[in-house]
Amino acid sequence: MATELGRRIVLAARPVGEPKDGDFRQEAFALPAPGEGQFLLRTIYLSLDPYMRGRMSAGASYAAPVELGQPMTGRSVGQVLESRHPGYRAGDFVFADIGWQSHGLSDGKGARKLDPEAAPISTALGVLGMPGLTAYVGLLDLGQPKPGETVVVSAATGAVGSLVGQLAKLKGCRAVGIAGGPAKCDYAAKELGYDFCLDHRADDLAGRLAEACPNGIDVYFENVGGAVLEAVLPLMNTHGRIPVCGQIAGYNATQAPPGPDKLPLMMRLALFRRLTIRGFIISDHTARASDFYREVGGYLREGRVKFREDIVEGLENAPRAFQGLLRGANFGKLLVRVSPDPTRG
Amino acid sequence: MATELGRRIVLAARPVGEPKDGDFRQEAFALPAPGEGQFLLRTIYLSLDPYMRGRMSAGASYAAPVELGQPMTGRSVGQVLESRHPGYRAGDFVFADIGWQSHGLSDGKGARKLDPEAAPISTALGVLGMPGLTAYVGLLDLGQPKPGETVVVSAATGAVGSLVGQLAKLKGCRAVGIAGGPAKCDYAAKELGYDFCLDHRADDLAGRLAEACPNGIDVYFENVGGAVLEAVLPLMNTHGRIPVCGQIAGYNATQAPPGPDKLPLMMRLALFRRLTIRGFIISDHTARASDFYREVGGYLREGRVKFREDIVEGLENAPRAFQGLLRGANFGKLLVRVSPDPTRG
Repeated sequence: MATELGRRIVLAARPVGEPKDGDFRQEAFALPAPGEGQFLLRTIYLSLDPYMRGRMSAGASYAAPVELGQPMTGRSVGQVLESRHPGYRAGDFVFADIGWQSHGLSDGKGARKLDPEAAPISTALGVLGMPGLTAYVGLLDLGQPKPGETVVVSAATGAVGSLVGQLAKLKGCRAVGIAGGPAKCDYAAKELGYDFCLDHRADDLAGRLAEACPNGIDVYFENVGGAVLEAVLPLMNTHGRIPVCGQIAGYNATQAPPGPDKLPLMMRLALFRRLTIRGFIISDHTARASDFYREVGGYLREGRVKFREDIVEGLENAPRAFQGLLRGANFGKLLVRVSPDPTRG
Repeated sequence: MATELGRRIVLAARPVGEPKDGDFRQEAFALPAPGEGQFLLRTIYLSLDPYMRGRMSAGASYAAPVELGQPMTGRSVGQVLESRHPGYRAGDFVFADIGWQSHGLSDGKGARKLDPEAAPISTALGVLGMPGLTAYVGLLDLGQPKPGETVVVSAATGAVGSLVGQLAKLKGCRAVGIAGGPAKCDYAAKELGYDFCLDHRADDLAGRLAEACPNGIDVYFENVGGAVLEAVLPLMNTHGRIPVCGQIAGYNATQAPPGPDKLPLMMRLALFRRLTIRGFIISDHTARASDFYREVGGYLREGRVKFREDIVEGLENAPRAFQGLLRGANFGKLLVRVSPDPTRG
């Protein structure tokens, strides 16, 4: 094993607008030996998530940016190759935060051992991972949906949105999704149980949304911003809630879009309709993780919650897959299979 | 008394943009006799408040509009002339909701008897009335200021803002006001106790605000919108709160202002900084009125809270005074003295 080389994707340049191939660079590196209290992980699945776009830029996100020349940050599921950590043994399946790398060292901080019998190991990056917890906290704690209310979810089939919609239904709400393209909308309605799902690429989203929400909108789970937000705002009911989970439509923006300026309209609606608009970052809410695992883990075992993965083969394809994610090209939770998954036949 | 005529101001036309003189009309009317369970009030003070602009338009406010030809809505303090209501006697001083009228009937709904010994009767329209309760609920319940935090208040010397700033200081916060013109800023700093007050009409508000808030802004009590909001937003701290009480800069707008569109920036900041932006209308929060009377009434008696009134003489001058209010021409709580106040020497 001493001669095996690891591979990693580093940030080569800070993107201007949409990330390009040249903003990433693949490098080889000699596999490190774990020090005392560390273990060496072989990555099986790397999670690609929209928040990573913020880490590529120098300013204005909620976490420190990736330094140029350093591996892109990211969460992975892998298998322990060698361990000098008392809590982990070779062969263990582990969730860890080792970035866009084929192999990485961990001291166990932020890591978690996985039981492949309890749930597919990849779900630790999706429906039973940060995206799932984000859906759970954002909808239930911030959105506070009541039975009979209308919940609208943008990016309705994404890693977060797909669980928001299903939780809304489980809580007795009307769930209306917004997604890109007929295939996703079809999946949302037929598989995820949304009452309706609207294609934001088709004409007159505002008109179709008004038809799908005859009693207005009580909770808008905001993942995207832009034109979808503008279609939603006028339909918000008095005392409506807007948990702001993402703004993917704007992550590649290099300047404010042209007018008219819709901020005054938004503020007037916030006032007249007594809206609560609340941004959140899931790392502030990890205290809810055990409730989440218990409740959503239960739904998953009972088959009451479904999930879908979009798996790209090979670490070298991560940059392209990530670029596609920001355009909505993925369909389900986007993962990169970096090495074979021994738990799948 | 049967031959005495009352006067009232009715809505003559729905304003387009800024209200003009011709949107109002003064009328005379025969004084009505109170029916069983009613009393007839002689108005002493009429309160003029920004929310009235919304009532003049047909749509998009939070309450039903005033009908054309009907008296403008408004809250008043007056004296009972004649009563067939068991709770009120001739001579009583009363707060009531009888609109822009020299005299009006009340069935006691929403009315309240005032004790001129406890506080000046005019304060029932200002610091001890709806504007005061708005400041109290908006700052304390929605803003949740902690000692040492920075609270920024727009319309800092207005009926609401002047109490917000003083409450912020009483709660141990740094209070930074924003007001129109040097006289108001001087008053805010010297009389109301703001640490700083910035003139939004002078150059580079954003730069001066950043200097006045070296630790950022934790609570922004939003009364105005527009350029002031844009200067505040980039300075908001993580987990900052924005209670939205008013948007006076936009009440006369007839269309969305030109670009760039600042809504995406606002939403990105809401997300990255985990802001809570929450619109509120004081009529949703009247359950807090008794706490408010006790606490702020106490501060007032102890001289720990000050207030300022801007009193215009004569009901016929109400339309012009209201037009000025929307431009920030008043200095302190704007009242119209409709008839003499027997409690003042």
